[in-house]
Amino acid sequence: MSVDGRMMRALAGEAQAVPPVWLMRQAGRYLPEYRATRARAGSFLDLCYTPELALEVTLQPIRRFGFDAAILFADILLVPQALGATLTFVEGEGPRLSRIETAEDLARLRPVDAIDETLAPVYETVRLLRAALPAGVPLIGFAGAPWTVATYMVAGRGTPDQAPARAMIYRDPATFDALVDRITEATIAYLGAQIDAGAQIVKLFDSWAGSVPGPLFARYVTAPARRIAEALRAAHPGVPLIGFPRGAGGAYEAYAEETGAAAIALDTSVDPAWAARRLQPGRCVQGNLDPLLLITGGDALVTTTRRLIDTLAGGPYIFNLGHGITPEADPRNVELLLRTIRG
Amino acid sequence: MSVDGRMMRALAGEAQAVPPVWLMRQAGRYLPEYRATRARAGSFLDLCYTPELALEVTLQPIRRFGFDAAILFADILLVPQALGATLTFVEGEGPRLSRIETAEDLARLRPVDAIDETLAPVYETVRLLRAALPAGVPLIGFAGAPWTVATYMVAGRGTPDQAPARAMIYRDPATFDALVDRITEATIAYLGAQIDAGAQIVKLFDSWAGSVPGPLFARYVTAPARRIAEALRAAHPGVPLIGFPRGAGGAYEAYAEETGAAAIALDTSVDPAWAARRLQPGRCVQGNLDPLLLITGGDALVTTTRRLIDTLAGGPYIFNLGHGITPEADPRNVELLLRTIRG
Repeated sequence: MSVDGRMMRALAGEAQAVPPVWLMRQAGRYLPEYRATRARAGSFLDLCYTPELALEVTLQPIRRFGFDAAILFADILLVPQALGATLTFVEGEGPRLSRIETAEDLARLRPVDAIDETLAPVYETVRLLRAALPAGVPLIGFAGAPWTVATYMVAGRGTPDQAPARAMIYRDPATFDALVDRITEATIAYLGAQIDAGAQIVKLFDSWAGSVPGPLFARYVTAPARRIAEALRAAHPGVPLIGFPRGAGGAYEAYAEETGAAAIALDTSVDPAWAARRLQPGRCVQGNLDPLLLITGGDALVTTTRRLIDTLAGGPYIFNLGHGITPEADPRNVELLLRTIRG
Repeated sequence: MSVDGRMMRALAGEAQAVPPVWLMRQAGRYLPEYRATRARAGSFLDLCYTPELALEVTLQPIRRFGFDAAILFADILLVPQALGATLTFVEGEGPRLSRIETAEDLARLRPVDAIDETLAPVYETVRLLRAALPAGVPLIGFAGAPWTVATYMVAGRGTPDQAPARAMIYRDPATFDALVDRITEATIAYLGAQIDAGAQIVKLFDSWAGSVPGPLFARYVTAPARRIAEALRAAHPGVPLIGFPRGAGGAYEAYAEETGAAAIALDTSVDPAWAARRLQPGRCVQGNLDPLLLITGGDALVTTTRRLIDTLAGGPYIFNLGHGITPEADPRNVELLLRTIRG
């Protein structure tokens, strides 16, 4: 079980003898109890918007594995929905949204101060979670970062290379910039409300940061993250932010410095030794085990986990995956992972 | 038209007043004359293995646009085929190969010294090209890098995240390492034979380098590239190698230093300003316009092209895209690009 405050102390910059651990998408389809609750919920969105059920699936991995942090069960596309996009999840295919293709589409979105109408149940989930979580297990709130959310709003769905959003940058940069601004403001409001409701940490997921063309990375990834981080620091001092610019590559350093995030989450492709030299001095890092190892298990899981800890746990470090846990992961491999980390 | 030697001088480390330019996949479906030749060829593999036709499609973009370099028309999967894998291209779906899943599968492959039986027509294409190309337009030979080729051989097809190859690393590293060794040796032989036949430059495409887990990047990307680069330097001194570890991110620097490649090709995500500071001192860089701009065209194409040149053409630099040109690209936008570069 968790020692009091291990997660918060790592985020405050202190190395921990046993690093805190949680897993991206730890409430998910690899758990039979999640699949059971999901079946009861009806749709995926019903699960997100029914506080008792979202509470239940958030707590399941804490009960089963004793992770050092819980992460709110929600979806990064609730913000576009709250801004007025229609949103559905097509079973086996993923999300479908009404598209933002023109300035007129953008003008039809709701103002930022209207988002709480839609998002109130999420804040209620946060309140229930804060009351239900054991001491020493902080609650992580989260949101999608503006670039990533914009890629879905422009394409109306997930895409392999985010080409529709990139094309909009080239064809109509003013509208794209206004869309990113709107999402940025909504994200500041949304994360602030999660903190008000009880979230002790927030994480910003820029899942598609790696597809931003190099010359535009600072403009569409780093600058919005910096704006969000600064606004939250001003309104909620002391609440750490974890930034996850997935696929940022050589831009990870600039992102870390410019946002001033308390922690930087490393995607699977980052070399931990590079992160120890270039990112960890001055801040906490989180990551980055290959999620495939929770399918394949065995010696490779144990050895790779130990090496990761040897490389990073000498400084402030949170153990996690480099990407979300997959539905095919074996819960017994999660147990093996935890025994390897905690001894 | 090309000035004599602009491409070779850039590769030798000299800044050029007008940077040389060629485009990845410049012989391709965006050109009507390519589609016509492709229709005559029958299958895609027939096009690769018929020297007169491969010659024709390689020359088409040189004739139309006067690019500063030609690149052999072939496919990175010809090497697995030459090693004994069955290979077919399914229209609209991509390649299908017999899979390497076990040590027994690997043992059934042909030895490296048998590859020339299959690849002889490619060398003949190189000879024809060398005789046909105008003075000052060098011929680039190429091969897929071992990691990328291995991902196809293990999965039997293209995959979004190269999970089958990553899983094999975890489940059976000895077999995976032996596969990478075999491909590395075949690649040295294949590129050496292309040089013997007349290629003046060679390029190593590691299209999936970005999916290698961070701790394994040096082992599966940098080390094989270094071995190939050293073998070619020893046997063919003075033939420049362009390394393209697409998606290498923070590992681009180590790749450049350890391989000693004459030029490093930048993928679309690399910030050109970062590349100017960290990669260009000491070597030529190539890249990295977003290929989408050849669909969208207009001011964004002109402005982005000019900025790229402003950032990189003060040092040794080859203008190119950050990824292959797409079938939807408009040839008129290629003309606009060339007018912007050449004035």
